[in-house]
Amino acid sequence: MSAAITADRTHAASRAGEPPLADLMAEIGRRARAASHRLALAPAEGKRQALIAGAGALRAAERVILAQNALDLADARAAGRPASFVDRLMLDPGRVDAIASAVEAIAALPDPVGRVLATFDRPNGLRIERVATPLGVIGVIFESRPNVTADAGALCLMAGNAAILRAGSESFRTSSAIAAAMGEGLATAGLPADAIQLVPVRDRDAVGLMLTGLGGAIDVIVPRGGRSLVERVQADARVPVFAHLEGVNHVYVQASADLDMARSVVLNSKMRRTGVCGAAETLLVDAAAVPTHLAPLVQALLDRGCAVRGDTQACAADPRVVPASDEDWATEYLDAIIACRVVDGLDDALAHIGRYGSHHTDAILTADADAAERFLAEVDSAIVLHNASTQFADGGEFGFGAEIGIATGRMHARGPVGVEQLSSFKYRVRGSGQTRP
Amino acid sequence: MSAAITADRTHAASRAGEPPLADLMAEIGRRARAASHRLALAPAEGKRQALIAGAGALRAAERVILAQNALDLADARAAGRPASFVDRLMLDPGRVDAIASAVEAIAALPDPVGRVLATFDRPNGLRIERVATPLGVIGVIFESRPNVTADAGALCLMAGNAAILRAGSESFRTSSAIAAAMGEGLATAGLPADAIQLVPVRDRDAVGLMLTGLGGAIDVIVPRGGRSLVERVQADARVPVFAHLEGVNHVYVQASADLDMARSVVLNSKMRRTGVCGAAETLLVDAAAVPTHLAPLVQALLDRGCAVRGDTQACAADPRVVPASDEDWATEYLDAIIACRVVDGLDDALAHIGRYGSHHTDAILTADADAAERFLAEVDSAIVLHNASTQFADGGEFGFGAEIGIATGRMHARGPVGVEQLSSFKYRVRGSGQTRP
Repeated sequence: MSAAITADRTHAASRAGEPPLADLMAEIGRRARAASHRLALAPAEGKRQALIAGAGALRAAERVILAQNALDLADARAAGRPASFVDRLMLDPGRVDAIASAVEAIAALPDPVGRVLATFDRPNGLRIERVATPLGVIGVIFESRPNVTADAGALCLMAGNAAILRAGSESFRTSSAIAAAMGEGLATAGLPADAIQLVPVRDRDAVGLMLTGLGGAIDVIVPRGGRSLVERVQADARVPVFAHLEGVNHVYVQASADLDMARSVVLNSKMRRTGVCGAAETLLVDAAAVPTHLAPLVQALLDRGCAVRGDTQACAADPRVVPASDEDWATEYLDAIIACRVVDGLDDALAHIGRYGSHHTDAILTADADAAERFLAEVDSAIVLHNASTQFADGGEFGFGAEIGIATGRMHARGPVGVEQLSSFKYRVRGSGQTRP
Repeated sequence: MSAAITADRTHAASRAGEPPLADLMAEIGRRARAASHRLALAPAEGKRQALIAGAGALRAAERVILAQNALDLADARAAGRPASFVDRLMLDPGRVDAIASAVEAIAALPDPVGRVLATFDRPNGLRIERVATPLGVIGVIFESRPNVTADAGALCLMAGNAAILRAGSESFRTSSAIAAAMGEGLATAGLPADAIQLVPVRDRDAVGLMLTGLGGAIDVIVPRGGRSLVERVQADARVPVFAHLEGVNHVYVQASADLDMARSVVLNSKMRRTGVCGAAETLLVDAAAVPTHLAPLVQALLDRGCAVRGDTQACAADPRVVPASDEDWATEYLDAIIACRVVDGLDDALAHIGRYGSHHTDAILTADADAAERFLAEVDSAIVLHNASTQFADGGEFGFGAEIGIATGRMHARGPVGVEQLSSFKYRVRGSGQTRP
């Protein structure tokens, strides 16, 4: 946070004595770019020290953060926000501690900067190395969850990037208090305060300005929020975006799958948490598995409180199943609802996923190794699994320590976006006077 | 090449019986996407067979290609195109053979698809692998060099991608003949003809349509041409772009550099070929090297026919040096001209490169290992070299076999863009029934 720019404005018009929003955002961009140059060269120990001190500052500021959060919560309730929204916004001492712990976990990650990714020894004696470097300046646009301020800021910092964070207006006060604590950590380590900047105004036009890239100051935008935010960012951004639109994830069960295993994985994929992007939304049961697997799986879901929308055969498996419409196959419910369809073999399953899937996370449950290998090779999704729950779609579960999101595009980052994917590379060439013939 | 769409139109209005351009381009996009799904699963041998057969067809079609080239050349000369333009367009038997050989070299590359890039064995028994996959559909927009049709098509194919190639209108006939030969290769191997499509019309509006992404059919655009083309693509593209704007490349010489080595590397960096993007454009001489290195280096360049535009000290080194203006430090001459400046130590050199460089390729010549390491770490360019010529900025010289261009951005691809950088990845997870707690 930069001391000069802390106005709390709620609309685009500038008040007396305040810079116009475009000037303010341009200045934030310049500061971020300047900070990124220093961060690119910051040793791992400095970044770790900043994060550990930031985590300490978060814990020390618990009362301030909770007081600001109470103000945000009161506004959100007064505005009639739904309970799920209020829950994402709400902090308590345990959640503040969890935010601090997450920052400490990021501090414990290996420094991605400077890793030698590949080496090419050339016949002329040149040694060429591909070396990881930071990306530069990362713009993060998020909605209600104030922990993103700490998470995203810490991940960007560990990868040597400057972050420009734009909090949803409803979490503005809470996010500001969290950003202040992260700023204390940066100061402790002697790193630039502008390494983690929270846009200091609520003005929604700040989002549009960030999507322009602030005159080349932002290298990539990461939207974290619901579908409408992500779609808007993808449509309007003039800089690259790491986005995932939705996870219409499938679990495809073959007859050879152990039934207990299949039941356990299907239930976990759908019901462990229904609101996460890795949750399964469609169950595909192979025609050969109808006599053995269909009813037990459908009934297990129903008994666990999941609504099932099925095709004719699934409806026949249990009277509680309601008929699915074509729309159901393409729907990310994020709720205790699953679509269920019988498919006629692996090719039909692949065709269904190719038509309705969202390239996020898909699983096959089978004892047939050849079918599993084909599924893993042919399903064009960020994450493909054999005999495991789709809910493993998570950077922490991959061992990445933390993630800034899960990307469904194929450019630069795909799947869980951790510190490695927040990096670029360059080529370092060492010679002894070589010239090119 | 698809047989259905081969009209030779020169403006946007559709003629009787032809589809409107937007429909034509959308159809090309759909065909490319469909082909990309098949290519993603094509084994290496099929791709290699297609390329080797394509190279054979190129050699067999030499007379046809040269005849079409003669027509293109006649038009270019009639339009008063400069000699350099005509030279880039012109083919002869040797150049046709070189195009075929380049395709064969690409066929000999390791298949990038399916490579395991990283493995993560998790405590819960999950084995997670990051596996290389194709990017999808690549749009290549180029100008006069007809060899790009074969080069770019072959590189995209080897990486499992479909290519949509838009040739400059001046090379349209030649490029069409080359594309037909590549199509023969695809047919020989049983791969989809739509894997390498040349936009079958000269209509310039096709470029604008490609930049929209053709309704999601194009994953990335690669512009190959001059600055005005690349700038237009970067400004207007709604899909990711692998672009390099220019190479304002520096050679920084310190006093400890062996003079003979420095002279040889400086001359090679500037004069081996002046028109390539890896050519040096600015010589920075350390203040400590002025008594020993400045005059010999400047005079060697002058004696080789290079104009030198210098600061006060460089002007003092030889009467043939003319004063540089501030603009010279930011200029990519692509000609036998170099800017020369004395800098006050490593920090001053880094500051100069940071201010005027284009993040392409920069070299330090020194015997001081610490200075070299700092230069390699701190210069934010795609390629940084110690004691070697900047003209090594080339995918072939890196051992990548071939390149579709040199990227100066930091997203996804950077430096020489070979088959590896034309790839994406996904995560393959193998389990035994794991569920997430």
